[in-house]
This record gives sequence, structure tokens and C-alpha cells, in this order.
Amino acid sequence: MAGSDIDLYFDFASPYAWFITGPLDALAAEHGRRVRWHPLMLWAVRKQFRLQPPMEGEARRSYLLRDAARSARFFGLEYREPPKLVVSTHLAARAYYWIEDRDGTLARRFGNAVFAAFFTQARDIGEPGVIGDIAGGLGIDRDELLTATKSPGLKQRLRDRVEEAARRGVWGSPFVFIDGEPFFGADRLPQIRRWLEEGGF
Amino acid sequence: MAGSDIDLYFDFASPYAWFITGPLDALAAEHGRRVRWHPLMLWAVRKQFRLQPPMEGEARRSYLLRDAARSARFFGLEYREPPKLVVSTHLAARAYYWIEDRDGTLARRFGNAVFAAFFTQARDIGEPGVIGDIAGGLGIDRDELLTATKSPGLKQRLRDRVEEAARRGVWGSPFVFIDGEPFFGADRLPQIRRWLEEGGF
Repeated sequence: MAGSDIDLYFDFASPYAWFITGPLDALAAEHGRRVRWHPLMLWAVRKQFRLQPPMEGEARRSYLLRDAARSARFFGLEYREPPKLVVSTHLAARAYYWIEDRDGTLARRFGNAVFAAFFTQARDIGEPGVIGDIAGGLGIDRDELLTATKSPGLKQRLRDRVEEAARRGVWGSPFVFIDGEPFFGADRLPQIRRWLEEGGF
Repeated sequence: MAGSDIDLYFDFASPYAWFITGPLDALAAEHGRRVRWHPLMLWAVRKQFRLQPPMEGEARRSYLLRDAARSARFFGLEYREPPKLVVSTHLAARAYYWIEDRDGTLARRFGNAVFAAFFTQARDIGEPGVIGDIAGGLGIDRDELLTATKSPGLKQRLRDRVEEAARRGVWGSPFVFIDGEPFFGADRLPQIRRWLEEGGF
């Protein structure tokens, strides 16, 4: 019997979110589970808890940049440090939800392409033109998509998702829930693996 | 040929520091390395970088408490949540350095006993009586030790260690340096393992 869906809350500008997506999908598949993506803006949930931005403090910032590059090598991923790591990802998130309503598989391809654009091609995913190009490359009508991202309904949907995440205690990216159990960070993959194998521990 | 020493900066009140000590020693031994402990007060280094305490924000606090208990199970350690997690560890740190000057092996036994007292016996390691009892149980003269922890020289030594840590970019606990490469968190053990095996990656 397949278990319930795994929820993944994340920000498209989070390298650790990118690192977890592939291994998490593989683990989920081994255990007959699906991973549901919930992109959001990390700053928006952290603000609700009055938490500093993750890049606050020069020592932490320089460590995280170094760790992200090293972790990419560890996970076997091509990685190029984005020219600016503080980027607003509301457009990418809204676009994801709009595509997901039409085609879940296509939405995941779009999401993976957004991560790749940001972390391997140094493209500014905060720019409508870049989001349009990524969508267009996947056969999505870029004008229809970009117009939709300005609609009140889609804006509200993203706000609702941020509030839902905050209610569930999400304060970082990536944040995973399996059967209600929270796991923060790509480095919890070994614990996630054990949780799925043993049904909790 | 044995490599250079591995430096471990940590706070005795950090569960993640406790989790890393055993596996890090085992990895170091496999590679002919020694681990040098540098206990300090996490709040003191974070203050230098204007970083919030790690327990700031109710959502983060409740996650970290849950994660610490789950991580203890993951690492196969007995664990009991300390009655207060915000405890001043300057006394334990000063005592560690004083013992280390006399007997490095005994200092590590003392350090392990401090961790165990805090994380398995719910004892307040900020209390001089508790530190004295732990030391006394290892055959150390408790009165001589407690008097020494008030000496200007030992106080200055701990301050110097905090400043040295800040200069090296330490902003969390545990923080490990191997051949100059920084690793933050017990969850970097897989990367530390690979670093030692491959001499960097």
C-alpha cells in the first residue's frame, strides 16, 4: 500500500532545496510515495517568526556559499554560484502553481529548469523574461503564463501557501513533512531514508 | 603519515556538538588524525556576528528540540531533554582547559561526562557544584579546579579562544576545521568522511 504524500516546502533560491529534490524523489519512489512541491518565499515565512535572513552575518554568509559549492560537489551536481543569492522567487512560485493546475509533470519539469537556470546558468529567476523563457522552452505559452502570474487569484494562492507553511512550523528551506514528521535541510536525507524504511524511529 | 589535527569548536550545551564527538573521533582515528576540542560559549561568537540565538523563534525552537531527540535516536544515543537548554557553559569550558593543561586524556573524559550530565541526566552544567561533582568523580581535586576557574588567566584564555573562533569564522556549534576547510553541524559527517578519505573533494 502506498503511503501518504510527502510535502516539500522550499524556496527556488535555496541551494539546499535543489540538492534535496533528486534524492527525495528517489527515496519516495522506493517507498511508493509521491513528493508534492510547495514553493514559497523563505523571507516571508521567516518574517512571520522574526528570524534573520539566512545570509545575515558575514561569517555565516561566507560559510554558506562555500558549503553550497562543496555540497553540490558532494551530491554530484554541476553548480555555479548565482551572481545574487537574494532574489525574489514569488514569480517562479506563482508560475509553478499555475502550471501544476494544468499538468503536474510539466510543473516539475518547469521547477527543475528554474533550479538549473539559477544554480548552473547564473540566470536571474526573479526576472519575468527569464521565467517566460524557461516556460516557453517547455512548450508553455509564455504570455499566458506571465499574465496569469499577475492575477489576484494566483497571488492569493501563494500567500495562502506561505501562511499554511508558517502554521505548520516551516521556518527554513527545504522543509519536508512525512506523516506529519518535520525534517529541515538536505542533510536530513539519512534520517528521512530511515523514517521511510522503518515507518518512523 | 598522520595528517594535521582536526579542530572542533563547540558549546557544551549544543546537542549537535555531543552527537558529532563520537563519530568524529572514530573517523579521525581511521585516518591517523587527532581531534582537538575547543569548548566555548556559542552566544559569545554569535554576538560578534550579530546573529540571533539558535533557539530564537518558537517554530525554530520547537523544531530543534524535536530534531535533537530524533537525531539522538538516529545516532543511537540515550537522550533526555535538558530542563533548560539556555545555560552558561563558561565554567565547563574553563574547567576543560584547566584539566587539559594537566592531562589531555582526562580532559576528554571530563568533557564526555559534562555532555552526559547535561543530555542524559538533566543536570545543570552551569552550576559550580555540578561541575565540581563531575570532576571529583574522575579523581580531580574539585576545590582546586573550582578555584582555578575563577582565575584571571583561565578567564582570559577562554576569551582568547572565543576571539580566535570568531576570527576563523565560527558562528555555530559544532564547527570543525580539517586542513583549513570548515564544516558546520553534525550533519556534515558524511562530507567530513569523504574529505578525509579523498584529501578534499
